[in-house]
Amino acid sequence: MDKPKEECGIFGIYGISEAANYVYLGLNFLQHRGQESCGIVSTEGISLYKQVGVGKISEFLDDEKLNYLKGYRAIGHVRYSTTGSPTLVNAQPITGSTSKGAVAIAHNGNITNANLIRNELIKQGKVFHSTSDSEVVIHLISESPCEDLVEGVKWALSRLEGSFALLIMTKDTLIAARDPMGFRPLSMGKVGDTIGDIGGTIAFSSEDSAFSIIEAKKLREVEPNEMIIVTESGITTDQILPIKPKTNQCVFELIYFAKPSSNLFHTSVYEYRLEIGRKLARAHPVDADYIVPVPDSGMVSAIGYSMESGIPLGLGLIRSHFIGRTFIEPSQKIRDFGVKMKFIPVPELITGKRIILIDDSVVRGTTSKKIVKLIRNYLPTEVHMRVASPPVRFPCFYGIDFSTYEELLANKHHTMNEIAAFIGVETIGYLDTDLLFTENDSASMGDFCAACFDGKYPSPLNQFSKDGFEQEIKQKYFGNRRGS
Amino acid sequence: MDKPKEECGIFGIYGISEAANYVYLGLNFLQHRGQESCGIVSTEGISLYKQVGVGKISEFLDDEKLNYLKGYRAIGHVRYSTTGSPTLVNAQPITGSTSKGAVAIAHNGNITNANLIRNELIKQGKVFHSTSDSEVVIHLISESPCEDLVEGVKWALSRLEGSFALLIMTKDTLIAARDPMGFRPLSMGKVGDTIGDIGGTIAFSSEDSAFSIIEAKKLREVEPNEMIIVTESGITTDQILPIKPKTNQCVFELIYFAKPSSNLFHTSVYEYRLEIGRKLARAHPVDADYIVPVPDSGMVSAIGYSMESGIPLGLGLIRSHFIGRTFIEPSQKIRDFGVKMKFIPVPELITGKRIILIDDSVVRGTTSKKIVKLIRNYLPTEVHMRVASPPVRFPCFYGIDFSTYEELLANKHHTMNEIAAFIGVETIGYLDTDLLFTENDSASMGDFCAACFDGKYPSPLNQFSKDGFEQEIKQKYFGNRRGS
Amino acid sequence: MDKPKEECGIFGIYGISEAANYVYLGLNFLQHRGQESCGIVSTEGISLYKQVGVGKISEFLDDEKLNYLKGYRAIGHVRYSTTGSPTLVNAQPITGSTSKGAVAIAHNGNITNANLIRNELIKQGKVFHSTSDSEVVIHLISESPCEDLVEGVKWALSRLEGSFALLIMTKDTLIAARDPMGFRPLSMGKVGDTIGDIGGTIAFSSEDSAFSIIEAKKLREVEPNEMIIVTESGITTDQILPIKPKTNQCVFELIYFAKPSSNLFHTSVYEYRLEIGRKLARAHPVDADYIVPVPDSGMVSAIGYSMESGIPLGLGLIRSHFIGRTFIEPSQKIRDFGVKMKFIPVPELITGKRIILIDDSVVRGTTSKKIVKLIRNYLPTEVHMRVASPPVRFPCFYGIDFSTYEELLANKHHTMNEIAAFIGVETIGYLDTDLLFTENDSASMGDFCAACFDGKYPSPLNQFSKDGFEQEIKQKYFGNRRGS
Amino acid sequence: MDKPKEECGIFGIYGISEAANYVYLGLNFLQHRGQESCGIVSTEGISLYKQVGVGKISEFLDDEKLNYLKGYRAIGHVRYSTTGSPTLVNAQPITGSTSKGAVAIAHNGNITNANLIRNELIKQGKVFHSTSDSEVVIHLISESPCEDLVEGVKWALSRLEGSFALLIMTKDTLIAARDPMGFRPLSMGKVGDTIGDIGGTIAFSSEDSAFSIIEAKKLREVEPNEMIIVTESGITTDQILPIKPKTNQCVFELIYFAKPSSNLFHTSVYEYRLEIGRKLARAHPVDADYIVPVPDSGMVSAIGYSMESGIPLGLGLIRSHFIGRTFIEPSQKIRDFGVKMKFIPVPELITGKRIILIDDSVVRGTTSKKIVKLIRNYLPTEVHMRVASPPVRFPCFYGIDFSTYEELLANKHHTMNEIAAFIGVETIGYLDTDLLFTENDSASMGDFCAACFDGKYPSPLNQFSKDGFEQEIKQKYFGNRRGS
Repeated sequence: MDKPKEECGIFGIYGISEAANYVYLGLNFLQHRGQESCGIVSTEGISLYKQVGVGKISEFLDDEKLNYLKGYRAIGHVRYSTTGSPTLVNAQPITGSTSKGAVAIAHNGNITNANLIRNELIKQGKVFHSTSDSEVVIHLISESPCEDLVEGVKWALSRLEGSFALLIMTKDTLIAARDPMGFRPLSMGKVGDTIGDIGGTIAFSSEDSAFSIIEAKKLREVEPNEMIIVTESGITTDQILPIKPKTNQCVFELIYFAKPSSNLFHTSVYEYRLEIGRKLARAHPVDADYIVPVPDSGMVSAIGYSMESGIPLGLGLIRSHFIGRTFIEPSQKIRDFGVKMKFIPVPELITGKRIILIDDSVVRGTTSKKIVKLIRNYLPTEVHMRVASPPVRFPCFYGIDFSTYEELLANKHHTMNEIAAFIGVETIGYLDTDLLFTENDSASMGDFCAACFDGKYPSPLNQFSKDGFEQEIKQKYFGNRRGS
Repeated sequence: MDKPKEECGIFGIYGISEAANYVYLGLNFLQHRGQESCGIVSTEGISLYKQVGVGKISEFLDDEKLNYLKGYRAIGHVRYSTTGSPTLVNAQPITGSTSKGAVAIAHNGNITNANLIRNELIKQGKVFHSTSDSEVVIHLISESPCEDLVEGVKWALSRLEGSFALLIMTKDTLIAARDPMGFRPLSMGKVGDTIGDIGGTIAFSSEDSAFSIIEAKKLREVEPNEMIIVTESGITTDQILPIKPKTNQCVFELIYFAKPSSNLFHTSVYEYRLEIGRKLARAHPVDADYIVPVPDSGMVSAIGYSMESGIPLGLGLIRSHFIGRTFIEPSQKIRDFGVKMKFIPVPELITGKRIILIDDSVVRGTTSKKIVKLIRNYLPTEVHMRVASPPVRFPCFYGIDFSTYEELLANKHHTMNEIAAFIGVETIGYLDTDLLFTENDSASMGDFCAACFDGKYPSPLNQFSKDGFEQEIKQKYFGNRRGS
Repeated sequence: MDKPKEECGIFGIYGISEAANYVYLGLNFLQHRGQESCGIVSTEGISLYKQVGVGKISEFLDDEKLNYLKGYRAIGHVRYSTTGSPTLVNAQPITGSTSKGAVAIAHNGNITNANLIRNELIKQGKVFHSTSDSEVVIHLISESPCEDLVEGVKWALSRLEGSFALLIMTKDTLIAARDPMGFRPLSMGKVGDTIGDIGGTIAFSSEDSAFSIIEAKKLREVEPNEMIIVTESGITTDQILPIKPKTNQCVFELIYFAKPSSNLFHTSVYEYRLEIGRKLARAHPVDADYIVPVPDSGMVSAIGYSMESGIPLGLGLIRSHFIGRTFIEPSQKIRDFGVKMKFIPVPELITGKRIILIDDSVVRGTTSKKIVKLIRNYLPTEVHMRVASPPVRFPCFYGIDFSTYEELLANKHHTMNEIAAFIGVETIGYLDTDLLFTENDSASMGDFCAACFDGKYPSPLNQFSKDGFEQEIKQKYFGNRRGS
Repeated sequence: MDKPKEECGIFGIYGISEAANYVYLGLNFLQHRGQESCGIVSTEGISLYKQVGVGKISEFLDDEKLNYLKGYRAIGHVRYSTTGSPTLVNAQPITGSTSKGAVAIAHNGNITNANLIRNELIKQGKVFHSTSDSEVVIHLISESPCEDLVEGVKWALSRLEGSFALLIMTKDTLIAARDPMGFRPLSMGKVGDTIGDIGGTIAFSSEDSAFSIIEAKKLREVEPNEMIIVTESGITTDQILPIKPKTNQCVFELIYFAKPSSNLFHTSVYEYRLEIGRKLARAHPVDADYIVPVPDSGMVSAIGYSMESGIPLGLGLIRSHFIGRTFIEPSQKIRDFGVKMKFIPVPELITGKRIILIDDSVVRGTTSKKIVKLIRNYLPTEVHMRVASPPVRFPCFYGIDFSTYEELLANKHHTMNEIAAFIGVETIGYLDTDLLFTENDSASMGDFCAACFDGKYPSPLNQFSKDGFEQEIKQKYFGNRRGS
């Protein structure tokens, strides 16, 4: 599938020797949230030690770099670079010497008023070293009139709009925070048995599943609008804004980003996807021989669809896992090379069969089209597509880099028949938006942002209107869409 | 799981520009058959060009090396080095200037009389450059009294005992061969539409699924005892031995080695494993909440077990795919580190549930034990294990490097109760040997070797008895087993 | 020799396609001035493109990175990291978005009031991303009340104390500057024939010899206190301070740092070293069979000594040039391994001979001691040492990282006899400070800083006394020296 | 200069722990004799351990590879690949299992009857794995009817024609040998003080200077026709042919290949080159301001020329040592890029001066032409060239890969005036062949091969005439030369 790109995964740990080694293991688990740059900052209580680089954490970090990262506290970051350039400028964690001392920051999300703040501070003579929206956070912390670090961080975060899950580390303090609306996930865990004890080791992760690797137990989620402050004196908690706004957690985390083993926004990703599959089967039934998931993202929903429909699950596409960075293609091009290198069909489950292809979401539709073409080579009698989410119709301002408005399949092809024809399937069925959460579900729609599906942005778009910024946003997200 | 090691995968192509590039893509698919060394030899009809190296093919081969591999014919090889050393000595394809011209050979299998032949030839003054059993093939071809290459190859292959799927290439000829008993698989495919036409491009692969990647279609399998000779004049076929012995295809290819998308020994791997899962459910039923496969090898059998038993499939272990070569572990060791880095539990499917864990096979049992321990951390009420093959009780002489006899779990722990206790499960159930093939199956036991399960070796062990070699074999395969 | 470490070499070019490629070639020549980190920033008039890394420029920059560095203007930097850590934090050029737009800076030298400025700015809420003294420059430029870039740079540079040769680049302007006292060298050259023409290509380099590689001609040196501003409108020049102070060029550039092919401070390095050799022969004559230079730094002075004394030059130590980064030594250590890997004796010029060993300078003396020991293995009858500079007795505050005060040989061993005994030679002779420049020389002592030899610092040491900084400096530069 | 290519350098050691580490250090010194592939084989008395690779030894061998090379005996090899391909096929040492056990061989030289032997053996059914002439040695050893290893080696070596310095190692024996005419050098040294003692450590090296690095002392040279056999019982010596032919040591080793610190063929390379410089000054005097050597190869002769003529030495070309493997050149090519990256002119020694350029030899003349062009940019008044060897007029069959006959400058341009015009100098002077050795020299012409200068090949060319091989040789070495 042509997947949207999320900005990052973050992981931190406080109070364990070789802290950077644990962060490295945690980041390795979070690698699906960003594979283009990565980094770790550690401290032994005196200095901050930093290593950032391009590529995956397991490729970048070697023994020598890990040994350099001294200390018993560390935070780390994995990132999708959306520019495609091999430069390190925007790799995280970012660090700086500030009026509150040396500070390191790892950020997942998108600060929508970053450019406004950035331009204002630059006009005042401040110097910015990157184009990352995250750099405004460290400047605001330094700018803050409060002398105390925690108060300064609170002052800074209260000025931010948009989404952020943050880990902020100084030589003696680790602060974890989620934006007031709670767009991005962040969980807190504990290594060792003495939960609640000051002497324990506290860990934070974008997804709680990463705790399994380092033998940590999940304590709870960092809540929207919450700051958790870890020091040698213990753990305290605070609120960013005095009045917490309505929660707007990103439903796309449940649909696609997070690993099925994770539990976030107080919801099991596995169970959510399984239930979506069941709802999809009820909403868009069709007779067939096999339910074929697009691996790996459509797998759990396919099991749900199979259970509900009684049609057997058939792994008709096997994913090839030994893929390197890029493949060298012969000059005489192979059609749909990337899809062929990734998905291997199982002829016995396709030839002469009616199949229902299940994927978690469709954004541009070009990969779905190629997959269907690959399957058609093996002569199925019918191919139906069922998508375990509604059509993506609107850009995201809170940390997901979808394609531009014009490229979104559901905008270009308005009817389901047109979309089915484009992809090359007999029928297509999406989940209705009102089925994302139904009354039996543990979570409820009211706590989630589904703006990419329904266009109901949690904050008015005119927040981007100051200072000519609106044009920039419109250009970036909506392209040349007429009449917009 | 603690998996056995197979020697190799082989791939060849004849009659396409940038032939080496296609072999590289084919080998990439076959990478699961060996990841420690790899190589390609190509020819443009004048010289042979060779590149061999350590590691995976996508890591080893870059543009520069690929450009060096000129020509429209090429063969390649991926290999498990069982020595663990980083040396290249035994990497394949092996090449040599012989009395029949320059020859390249890629070999999957194990030639059981290699040492006898090797020692004899060395005594005569021949020079061997590796310790590989495959090198005797090239020497026998050069030794052959026949002037003609094809006759020489036939003469050489008829002297070999044991297992071999071979690709043999000179500057103008490509020969594919399977040993008379047909232990190892080899398929023939064709690129382009003009099947049977001399002008077409012929490909060979250990598994036919690799053809999908290069847009080739499978023609048929190379049959046991068959040599297929491809030259510019077309394709001919010949028999190695005048009288073909009983076929003895390796059942472990179906059980574990091959990708589920492959069809080999005229059998769909996917369907075979699905059916095994059904048989297992009938043979060893137990009540439970979820059928949990050990990913990825237990997946298809788990679907079969779930279908037959009606117990829902639950992907309780998620495989982490972003694993690098090795991970740097903290000095304070993490228990069962390797298993924790590879398998992430889904607590919702485990905690308070009765689960049936499905794996394709158990060799030493140590990995199964660790997986169960990991699962137990999440407090299931019951864990049952079902294994989609019989207990491995005997060493293999035909190309699979199991652990030594003494390490085989089914030899150390004789009763099922003992084995269940060792692994840490409530009950364990293996497939009975006589269920490997039953009357409704398309294939029949008579065509397969299952010596690792039943000890019925297709050739008498005394073939190893000449020249003191028996001791060596016994030592290697049976260790210090008393009374043997 | 145990050499002092200089901070950097810088190179820039304006007005040529593939500008970064030329900077890469220029930096390669300047590599002797710093080999631990390197970087280039380029611009095509719209954005700044940046690549910085560890190691030598020819190891770090590959085709992909070079292609990323678009545009026809670029500046670059090579650096000695004095921390020994593999981190990139202080690699240059440094870049930032400022109130004057995006700015890149490459700096050679040491800004002595950097910490004062840095602490002041941080207190005001500014954020610093490195510990480099160079980062204050970019902050001051952004801070400057002047709207105009050139005025802003002038305002910033006039606030700096210490030494700097600087290249400052924005998307449309390149500024080259030397500090008012002119400690560090910087030359201007021109590619192509149309000198003075606006359409021409202007280059800047720490050493003019680098121009040879890119087919540029030297125009002149950037003068102390001068700023040269290159834009599309042409070249203009300005003064940093309204009244230029006395010039204080670093004599160590002539003695050791610069390549003998360079001409800097209006002085030919080759001729300067040759003349020093002659003076040394007159001041410290001794009879001998051969003048043996320590390669390569003692070579030119040795020729001068040989000419003046009439004693033949003998290359008794051959330098091994195929040295990698570090050598793997056997566990049973080889005595003076590093010296043995670097210098190969020529027995015919040593055994039974009286030799005069010539080196450019002696700092700690430990390497000289090892070289003499190596020579003594070949049984010379006498070894005399002549040093083509005065004893190094004082730390440098202007960009050279000598050892700490206590380690300087000339401080630990006060008499020449003591020093000769330490090194293991019959006699030793240094150049007298008043011979550094004599009346026949083209340059005169009045224009140079020789504080490392005579302790006459061009600016009062109490400039370091504010804000407790004096202690830090004393600790760093003078160690635990009692009574200082 | 456009230098000829020599095949190899070899180094071996017997009787020291971490033997491979010493060989690695020795090979590093010998790196000037070949930089394109390298390798080491070691033994602990049981197995042979092998590592071969492309590039320099210090780039190829890391800790892991070195640790693999167990044992207290090892031999190694550095090699110029003349094919330019990145393949490893011909990398040495070569190894094989033979009728005398496992054998490793490192070879410097060129066996002129290798193809005859190779073709004969292949016809008999032997298999060759490389195209290297060295592989025949291992085959002949295995072929030998003698049971004893030493007798077998002797039998094999006596069948070889051409040049060889060889190190042959089995698990318990190290044999060093030089061909009967002694073309290539080989020295024996000893680590530790107990010379002659069985317990000592014996080393062999192409050049004795390498002993300095590992703290070994030279014992003596291996003599032409000699085999030295080292075992645990001690050192013995033997003769290859019963009657030693006339010695024909390669004079080009003294002129160019060997490091000036080496002593080989009982001659000091430094003193030989110094004396050549003196002879050249007497034979071809001319008035000038500076003697400018082409670094580094013309350096010692230039000192000799300067001493004899009284004209001062001036290092007018500085060699840039920080050169990487290859440089990335801008698309708009820099004229004579390679020469400009390597040699930096010193303007003060060139502009307005008359200079005499000294190089050790001229083969094709194209590099000399470029160097003169570079110098002319700096406007000397006169440039004279003096070459410290006679014109190269004939190909070499004994291990030096000169250009083809037609490319040799001295064949294309017959008169000195024509050659001077081609190179671009006022006058040129070569050494006369009869001055290579004169009566005062310690060595005498009678013991040397100077066939590349005088065409007097030590063995009749018709040795190449059997089996159609003559045509091949003529084609290879003489090209399309008419009338030959």
